[in-house]
Amino acid sequence: MKKYAIIVAGGKGLRMNAGLPKQFIPVNGKPLLMLTLEAFSRYDNNIELILVLPVSQQEYWQSLCRQYEFTQAHAIANGGETRFHSVQNGLMLVPDAAESLVAIHDGVRPFVSRQTISEAFNCAGEYGSAVPAIDPVDSVRSLTGNGSEALDRTKLKMVQTPQVFKTGMLKEAYLQPFSPSFTDDASVVEKYGHPIRLTEGNRENIKITTPFDLLVAEVCCKLPL
Amino acid sequence: MKKYAIIVAGGKGLRMNAGLPKQFIPVNGKPLLMLTLEAFSRYDNNIELILVLPVSQQEYWQSLCRQYEFTQAHAIANGGETRFHSVQNGLMLVPDAAESLVAIHDGVRPFVSRQTISEAFNCAGEYGSAVPAIDPVDSVRSLTGNGSEALDRTKLKMVQTPQVFKTGMLKEAYLQPFSPSFTDDASVVEKYGHPIRLTEGNRENIKITTPFDLLVAEVCCKLPL
Repeated sequence: MKKYAIIVAGGKGLRMNAGLPKQFIPVNGKPLLMLTLEAFSRYDNNIELILVLPVSQQEYWQSLCRQYEFTQAHAIANGGETRFHSVQNGLMLVPDAAESLVAIHDGVRPFVSRQTISEAFNCAGEYGSAVPAIDPVDSVRSLTGNGSEALDRTKLKMVQTPQVFKTGMLKEAYLQPFSPSFTDDASVVEKYGHPIRLTEGNRENIKITTPFDLLVAEVCCKLPL
Repeated sequence: MKKYAIIVAGGKGLRMNAGLPKQFIPVNGKPLLMLTLEAFSRYDNNIELILVLPVSQQEYWQSLCRQYEFTQAHAIANGGETRFHSVQNGLMLVPDAAESLVAIHDGVRPFVSRQTISEAFNCAGEYGSAVPAIDPVDSVRSLTGNGSEALDRTKLKMVQTPQVFKTGMLKEAYLQPFSPSFTDDASVVEKYGHPIRLTEGNRENIKITTPFDLLVAEVCCKLPL
């Protein structure tokens, strides 16, 4: 079955205390975003990669590709107002083939394992959707009107990407009007009425959002994923 | 106000793929547990430290202290059947002074910042309880009978330690019969009827439970906390 991966890198990097948007920061000598694209081509050399980038960053990205001699083929779509709109733009580059599969992945999660990607594609191929998730290590509390209450941790899962779906269904789900409750692709698909299947994620598959995460990233580079 | 810290290190290290219980694994050249004890003495040199260790590990710990010339004063209590029972044993070494404060801290969280400890003690001094917590980075889903559903991440907090309480109240809470729903000290105190106050934790304050966490720990050793 034909496979696509939409890598969403719309972040402005405001949380990084750095001028450079976080997806461009070099880790182990290479911009993060290149590591992320390579994680998918390592899984399947025939996967079609679509990178969603703000228009204002596309020229810089092209110059980075030249500088780092990054030759991995990929299409580029324009970043949108929100993540939802960015994914919509990426989906426009995916042909209408109901039986193909699309993965949506955060550009700043370069340490997704081959196993995580593979399980998610296999599950989506069978059930139409797949969302990798891991058990929380910490206790979780829910804020209430006047305090907080403990949740049953054994019933909770921390959600990662890639979130993988059958193309036809995902495209229909993304025709819905935008809602602020759309925090990830699973929430869009669920609102559309399609159930979500959970698969196993990998703990190293962190979302790199802080300077601390960048230090952890240097460690992750040395792991066999 | 007199301060105590009970460091709970009951873990058998079964998740580490290593014979050595995880609290003894050296990070940056020193067993984890020593780093944890030092985090509290660095915060307040007069704090009374109580280490809760399984009886079977106490002799080994003493030999480590000699080997590493670890001279930080600390009392030792016996580990119990569960974390609840370990904390009960630790509390027996805390004098009955209603106005003192007790912190309960995971032995495998060596990278708690001085600021996290300080805020928790200050809050508990004022309100009787304090539990440090941070915002989740990932989306969170809750398992249901036949699938899962998205939770509102903006209402969730990931709980850390030290959890700090007024001694008198905490000792009374720990007189309750054991319940499997007691996942941390906050849940024990809450069941007793005392509200929980949340303070700010620090992202580096991870619970070291996997080989990956140990690699991250080597990074954390280099940070100013």
